[in-house]
Amino acid sequence: LQILSLINDRASVIQEIGKIKEKQGMNRYDPLRERHMLNLLKDNNNGPLDQKTVDHIFKEIFKSALDMQEEDTRKTLLVSRKKKAEDTIININGEMVGQGEPSFIFGPCAVESQEQVTTVAEAIGGKGLKMIRGGAYKPRTSPYDFQGLGLEGLKMLKKAADQYNLAVVSEIVTPHHLEEALDYVDVVQVGARNMQNFELLKAVGSINKPVLLKRGMSATIEEFINAAEYIIASGNSQIILCERGIRTYEKATRNTLDISAVPILKQETHLPVFVDVTHSTGRRDLLLPAAKAAIAIGADGVMAEVHPDPAVALSDAQQQMNLPQFDEYYDSLMKFMKQYEMKI
Amino acid sequence: LQILSLINDRASVIQEIGKIKEKQGMNRYDPLRERHMLNLLKDNNNGPLDQKTVDHIFKEIFKSALDMQEEDTRKTLLVSRKKKAEDTIININGEMVGQGEPSFIFGPCAVESQEQVTTVAEAIGGKGLKMIRGGAYKPRTSPYDFQGLGLEGLKMLKKAADQYNLAVVSEIVTPHHLEEALDYVDVVQVGARNMQNFELLKAVGSINKPVLLKRGMSATIEEFINAAEYIIASGNSQIILCERGIRTYEKATRNTLDISAVPILKQETHLPVFVDVTHSTGRRDLLLPAAKAAIAIGADGVMAEVHPDPAVALSDAQQQMNLPQFDEYYDSLMKFMKQYEMKI
Amino acid sequence: LQILSLINDRASVIQEIGKIKEKQGMNRYDPLRERHMLNLLKDNNNGPLDQKTVDHIFKEIFKSALDMQEEDTRKTLLVSRKKKAEDTIININGEMVGQGEPSFIFGPCAVESQEQVTTVAEAIGGKGLKMIRGGAYKPRTSPYDFQGLGLEGLKMLKKAADQYNLAVVSEIVTPHHLEEALDYVDVVQVGARNMQNFELLKAVGSINKPVLLKRGMSATIEEFINAAEYIIASGNSQIILCERGIRTYEKATRNTLDISAVPILKQETHLPVFVDVTHSTGRRDLLLPAAKAAIAIGADGVMAEVHPDPAVALSDAQQQMNLPQFDEYYDSLMKFMKQYEMKI
Amino acid sequence: LQILSLINDRASVIQEIGKIKEKQGMNRYDPLRERHMLNLLKDNNNGPLDQKTVDHIFKEIFKSALDMQEEDTRKTLLVSRKKKAEDTIININGEMVGQGEPSFIFGPCAVESQEQVTTVAEAIGGKGLKMIRGGAYKPRTSPYDFQGLGLEGLKMLKKAADQYNLAVVSEIVTPHHLEEALDYVDVVQVGARNMQNFELLKAVGSINKPVLLKRGMSATIEEFINAAEYIIASGNSQIILCERGIRTYEKATRNTLDISAVPILKQETHLPVFVDVTHSTGRRDLLLPAAKAAIAIGADGVMAEVHPDPAVALSDAQQQMNLPQFDEYYDSLMKFMKQYEMKI
Repeated sequence: LQILSLINDRASVIQEIGKIKEKQGMNRYDPLRERHMLNLLKDNNNGPLDQKTVDHIFKEIFKSALDMQEEDTRKTLLVSRKKKAEDTIININGEMVGQGEPSFIFGPCAVESQEQVTTVAEAIGGKGLKMIRGGAYKPRTSPYDFQGLGLEGLKMLKKAADQYNLAVVSEIVTPHHLEEALDYVDVVQVGARNMQNFELLKAVGSINKPVLLKRGMSATIEEFINAAEYIIASGNSQIILCERGIRTYEKATRNTLDISAVPILKQETHLPVFVDVTHSTGRRDLLLPAAKAAIAIGADGVMAEVHPDPAVALSDAQQQMNLPQFDEYYDSLMKFMKQYEMKI
Repeated sequence: LQILSLINDRASVIQEIGKIKEKQGMNRYDPLRERHMLNLLKDNNNGPLDQKTVDHIFKEIFKSALDMQEEDTRKTLLVSRKKKAEDTIININGEMVGQGEPSFIFGPCAVESQEQVTTVAEAIGGKGLKMIRGGAYKPRTSPYDFQGLGLEGLKMLKKAADQYNLAVVSEIVTPHHLEEALDYVDVVQVGARNMQNFELLKAVGSINKPVLLKRGMSATIEEFINAAEYIIASGNSQIILCERGIRTYEKATRNTLDISAVPILKQETHLPVFVDVTHSTGRRDLLLPAAKAAIAIGADGVMAEVHPDPAVALSDAQQQMNLPQFDEYYDSLMKFMKQYEMKI
Repeated sequence: LQILSLINDRASVIQEIGKIKEKQGMNRYDPLRERHMLNLLKDNNNGPLDQKTVDHIFKEIFKSALDMQEEDTRKTLLVSRKKKAEDTIININGEMVGQGEPSFIFGPCAVESQEQVTTVAEAIGGKGLKMIRGGAYKPRTSPYDFQGLGLEGLKMLKKAADQYNLAVVSEIVTPHHLEEALDYVDVVQVGARNMQNFELLKAVGSINKPVLLKRGMSATIEEFINAAEYIIASGNSQIILCERGIRTYEKATRNTLDISAVPILKQETHLPVFVDVTHSTGRRDLLLPAAKAAIAIGADGVMAEVHPDPAVALSDAQQQMNLPQFDEYYDSLMKFMKQYEMKI
Repeated sequence: LQILSLINDRASVIQEIGKIKEKQGMNRYDPLRERHMLNLLKDNNNGPLDQKTVDHIFKEIFKSALDMQEEDTRKTLLVSRKKKAEDTIININGEMVGQGEPSFIFGPCAVESQEQVTTVAEAIGGKGLKMIRGGAYKPRTSPYDFQGLGLEGLKMLKKAADQYNLAVVSEIVTPHHLEEALDYVDVVQVGARNMQNFELLKAVGSINKPVLLKRGMSATIEEFINAAEYIIASGNSQIILCERGIRTYEKATRNTLDISAVPILKQETHLPVFVDVTHSTGRRDLLLPAAKAAIAIGADGVMAEVHPDPAVALSDAQQQMNLPQFDEYYDSLMKFMKQYEMKI
């Protein structure tokens, strides 16, 4: 038990170190002083511990001090639930995203024509939903693939959305496009490939519209949370996180839906969490089961792709639903949801 | 449209090839003949296609023929739903596993003492459940880690199980142990590390007890299905597949729960599919959300670890529930299930 | 053998299809026509094949036609060796990168002070080397990590480089920075996180300086090659590809050095290929063996981090060499190289 | 500086804990006592630290104590270089494996016929090499794939090997086969799928012949080392470790050759390390560059597959060399090696 009192003594010593550090200046990390202290210690070590051990122990102390500060940092991450316990709720076109009942974002992978998006918007609006997605600036692996219709596509999408009272969700790939696009976009999507495009994160952090941030293809959850922190640190707290599958060795699905990420993100942050069932599975036959799992595990919303004629779509032909499939899909989900609501 | 008739002609040619192949012998693959045919074709090629192109086309034809045969093979895999459309239902201690309502397997990671397993068995039996798990032969990364109590452990587990009318689920790691263990085990588990231990698969394929086959740490779904085929091909069709997480770069969870594997396995095979929420997440706080997702996506059962005092467990201390947590866990799941049942 | 003639017939039919397609218009993919053709075929199918089979076969034909066109595309990728057989050689500050003898890029992870970079520049220049690297715009996981000194850092680096006749290699993270940075950078690095920041790729594709393109953290080789194609398609063919390790489950190294990527990239493209041994291994003790492997397998150069006092570096402290280690490292590599040169 | 003396005090306290632990019993981990101590501490905590913090600190202390013991364990792993500094050298048929000069193991994937293995044995023997490989018991994903000729195959291989004075390297998949096989096998291979088949590891640990242990498909280096420890702990120290590629998302190669594993394994253990260039790359065109990289990075040997007519091989057709390719391959490697030897 004397260990206990020794540990309590040591704790106060650590606090003293902390205070000294604070007094000596603002920088939380001063390499020169660290080097200096290590040398000083070397000169004053009288044993019984040998120098190598002392060095090791002090490096551990420095490290644990840094870790404590990091832990503090995490606590004080603006996206952290430790910083803000209550859920962030985002009002998108009257829909309160994150308030408990799952929301839905449907729409084609890419905007291809006015007719195409209007047809889809009608189907979405007809279900009383509030959002439509559609890619206008398409990041594509090859420079020779269809790159999207750009601003023209956004205008088409906005026109269709307005007709059926929908909010437009669309991806922006560079800060440069943001200004021209903002008139036509209600929720700015940052895609998986751009999750660590920090200049883009800062740019969408300075606007006054919700941001849907997709997890990077091989981003850890910690990296994902820090990417969101870039946005909130720039002033925009209307962030929706979106799990969209991670890259693994398994090829039965396009990506591997990391469903556990949903409760972890809900626990670590106060932000709404969506699941993109289209990109995570890449298989039309899995869109429904994946959505059920997402809702059951606590996701705030589901995103899926709908196209009037997927077989001839300019991108993602294999994984989009056509309109009758969409109707059936939505009906099944609603049945599942009804049970689910009762539970709450 | 003349292409169409040509293709129909070609189809009959392919059928002829198939017949010739069949006539010429039983072996579906005869390398010498393939070589012979390639040489023969070379000698008889009059163009307009050059030799390299002809070689390429015929390799494609050979390959597509093999693919067709493989597709046939998949159809005729004994575990395939194409072979047997209706669900396999396995009667374990009166519980009809795979019949629609989720089943549960709980119990400690490892059998440590008679008292320990009896305590857990009482808790499980008290909920009206029918199965208890516990490791006696423990495959451990290091030869110096606790290797399980072996046969003695199994006897303890069986004694506890009998007291509370439970079936024993326990892992066997080598064909050699099977005989001695069978008196004390009701469901033989084949662990992730042994998913491709084909001699073990054949051995459990020749017994008359259900087998719980876990997915290998980095097994593809196709490899997993083929591992089950080894068991069924040896005569045992009472197989439960168990998704238990795959190895990925993400370290927030012990493994990454590949939840999409559940509907894929249900689609491709007629076997019941479980989810081991303990090993897939490795986090006590995720056991409940993961189980909900598993049930929602259509799993036939959930497996999780319960230990009277997890903090001092000889293995997997971080991820086992203690008994009060177990009670709470089970209650929450039952509430979730009640809603779920109504839906059906 | 009648199959052979049938196949030759079929080949000419396929050629006819190709011609018809070409005549009908410029677009290589016309969804409406594809739909139209499928319907037409349905109406004209007289068996013996059933409709489902005909559909399947024709989809295969369409797909193989697209595949052939894709193969053609790959042949005509501007970065492809099929397009340009001879190696691209890039003159950087008098060093002919890609000409057969390995080149080296050394320098600190981040520019921290004028003194720091001058010290390193002296060490590099003293070995007769021609390039120095150093990060000024640092993409960092957390917004609260040291973000680099920006333009001021570049000026420091340029000043140090000029003093010792070195070319500056430094990362640019957004098109917006490019203009201000170009006066101080001789080789523009595009980092792993930005490998699919297509707007940045286009921007560096329009400048007249060499680009060092790093492979994304979980990019496939095909995606990597296509990223380079974005640059060359925008007009800049001075591209160095840099393998820097990929994200896998293995945690003994920071990333997993995908050494096989080097010969594949050399085979598929005409561009010089470097290996960043620092980021791929993340371990100082592996910098030398990894560099030997890189050179032996045919890399055109090696990149590694050097810092006057790594223990107190503001980033990547664990993996940078100090100056005496750098001397020893370079000597060992030179000895290895001398043997190697003789071989050629 | 008073911290320094406090830390020295604390160190002696930790030593005392260690002694008390040792006195109280043999078991290095006693869960009941740990629980007891935590309760005792709770009763005696007088602050200023709150109970939660004290718990946390003591768990850290317990953990660091365990870590220290684990570090000790690693030091005392029998395969560890810390346990035995000098390289283990294994005499296989007169070839001193691990002595500095790379060794080579060639041969077909599977034994298919006497003629086949005799042809390959002649080619290998003709180069003055000492070992031939060939699979007789083939672990195959599907139960319907060619499963090897078993004991008959081994006899064929042995006959061919004897004729050209070669040692036989062949895989054993279950302890049960070991006895019958030992007369015909000189080096027992444990395959990737069986790296954690611990009963097999123990079985090959009890024989008096060298064991070639392949890394599991997704095994960490630490797991790999521990698998070798199972063998050596059972009494057999003649172990060759074999890196054979790991499973990642990249599909350009069959597996991803983790070349960094070679120096790490050489550093951590005293065992010879081989690289299987065939299975790690799965591409004939990469066999030579990969072998060069392996040798340059310090591998003790290279394994590659050779088949008289790969196009018609019963397994691994895409990646085996034919005999002329083998000649060219070996010549190129010898040239590379000659330079390399000079260096030493």
